Amino acid sequence: MDWRNEIVAAADRIGGYVRRTPVTMLDFSGLPAPVEVKLEQMQHTGTFKARGAFNSLLSGPVPDGGVVAASGGNHGAAVAYAAARLGIPAQIFVPEIAGPSKIDLIRRTGAGLTVVPGAYADALQAALAHEARTGAMQIHAYDAPATVAGQGTCMAEWENQGLQADTVVIAVGGGGLAGGALAWLQGRRKVVAVEPETSCALHAALEAGAPVDVEVSGIAANALGARRIGSLCFGLAQEHGAQSVLVTDAAIADAQRVLWREARQLVEPAGAAALAALLSGAYLPEPGERVAVLICGANPAPDPV
Amino acid sequence: MDWRNEIVAAADRIGGYVRRTPVTMLDFSGLPAPVEVKLEQMQHTGTFKARGAFNSLLSGPVPDGGVVAASGGNHGAAVAYAAARLGIPAQIFVPEIAGPSKIDLIRRTGAGLTVVPGAYADALQAALAHEARTGAMQIHAYDAPATVAGQGTCMAEWENQGLQADTVVIAVGGGGLAGGALAWLQGRRKVVAVEPETSCALHAALEAGAPVDVEVSGIAANALGARRIGSLCFGLAQEHGAQSVLVTDAAIADAQRVLWREARQLVEPAGAAALAALLSGAYLPEPGERVAVLICGANPAPDPV
Repeated sequence: MDWRNEIVAAADRIGGYVRRTPVTMLDFSGLPAPVEVKLEQMQHTGTFKARGAFNSLLSGPVPDGGVVAASGGNHGAAVAYAAARLGIPAQIFVPEIAGPSKIDLIRRTGAGLTVVPGAYADALQAALAHEARTGAMQIHAYDAPATVAGQGTCMAEWENQGLQADTVVIAVGGGGLAGGALAWLQGRRKVVAVEPETSCALHAALEAGAPVDVEVSGIAANALGARRIGSLCFGLAQEHGAQSVLVTDAAIADAQRVLWREARQLVEPAGAAALAALLSGAYLPEPGERVAVLICGANPAPDPV
Repeated sequence: MDWRNEIVAAADRIGGYVRRTPVTMLDFSGLPAPVEVKLEQMQHTGTFKARGAFNSLLSGPVPDGGVVAASGGNHGAAVAYAAARLGIPAQIFVPEIAGPSKIDLIRRTGAGLTVVPGAYADALQAALAHEARTGAMQIHAYDAPATVAGQGTCMAEWENQGLQADTVVIAVGGGGLAGGALAWLQGRRKVVAVEPETSCALHAALEAGAPVDVEVSGIAANALGARRIGSLCFGLAQEHGAQSVLVTDAAIADAQRVLWREARQLVEPAGAAALAALLSGAYLPEPGERVAVLICGANPAPDPV
């Protein structure tokens, strides 16, 4: 696949709908040098996932039944938002356990919302029934070319904004964001892929030589807890030699506090995982190595205001 | 006073110590056009006030007794931080009622900290006694040329970052930030000065034709609640015809929620006041008028993480 062309085309498609999120240089106490940061959590619905959602909906015809997702998380919110902006009918099936903040986030998009009693499996069953009944399309959260290309526009945009770093540090869940970055960079900069120790599908896959199922838990599991790494991300990580790094929940919580205390950015655990790798020393740059950190999500629950 | 030269000199002095804070374009639901935003709450200690503090400490010799401030607020934190970075002895007298978040913010700077039982007046008395005993210098929070010139670097920096707007909307407390902006702009762009209805020292002064004492209250009073507008800001506002606009506490709280929900920026009430003027319609731009909003502070209490 010609990823560079796919990502350029995606950027053209979604340019009128997504935010060009700000970049800045931040010094953190304890780090030897400032790091470049992109505040992608300022994207619509609070994560990069709006990029992949818009690209998927704009890449081809959408059936009359519209779009459907089962999610109480960041992907569901992004699909709901993108569909509402595009005037595409959407039904999002949210498990009741997602909690009032995430449910409100989806409700505010204006998309159709069904709160399903129970957990994720119940919402998924309802979504599948809706799909069978209406012909609505599902958008994969991370392992589809349109999703990966959409997320890849984030790194393309950052380079367009003057990124200097030798190395980009990115949190990995299912691998949509990291896969998109690897696809865009094609080895031109080093990618450090950060996962929680307790939700490390890419790390396990790289060790096993193929995607394998993992158990997921921990404070970032609601966003990074993919049971199996996406095959697209896995292939790109192998091809371009992404470095896999693990962080503890304690390091993630520390990085959340540092981002607030030193830069007044309040993010969810997944959004702080990449910085945690640097602050905790899980990733130790070489002397003189210029490092960039992608801040990717800020949907903590409950909402702070 | 040649303000442009003063501000250029201030920017040179403080450049190695303050952050070049990011700027971005944000679309808010309900507004007809995107607005330019500068995230100055990402400055060290969470407000623009680090600029004036560094400029004051770097503008001339500091006595052996160092620097002293009585404040449980943003100014005290900025002075404490700047002094600690410059290796200047600092004693900050904080009223106990400032609460644990603000006290921790000052403690983390490494500056000398004395928590004084009681309210602000008690802390001020202790600070004055310290000044008399040690010869330490006080830095005015808003009505001194070095303070105003330091805060003026924020607007100079924004123009250097490519500011397009015809009109810049800024919250006003004692007038350091707005005064600095007026001093830099010299009428080249319109300045809208936003105050809470219940803490409106500039508004009252413009009506009376001279600075007058006002009562202060409301949710932003801990940051914007100056009893009397600074004479420097008042003179500049008169000279350049700053437009005074008032907002309600409810509009400020709404703007806080919108900044979080639509852009994942958590700010204190004072930091949302400028945006509140736009969102509430207290300031109504002309058709085609390009508007910028300065986000100036993010020290809510308690800390969210």
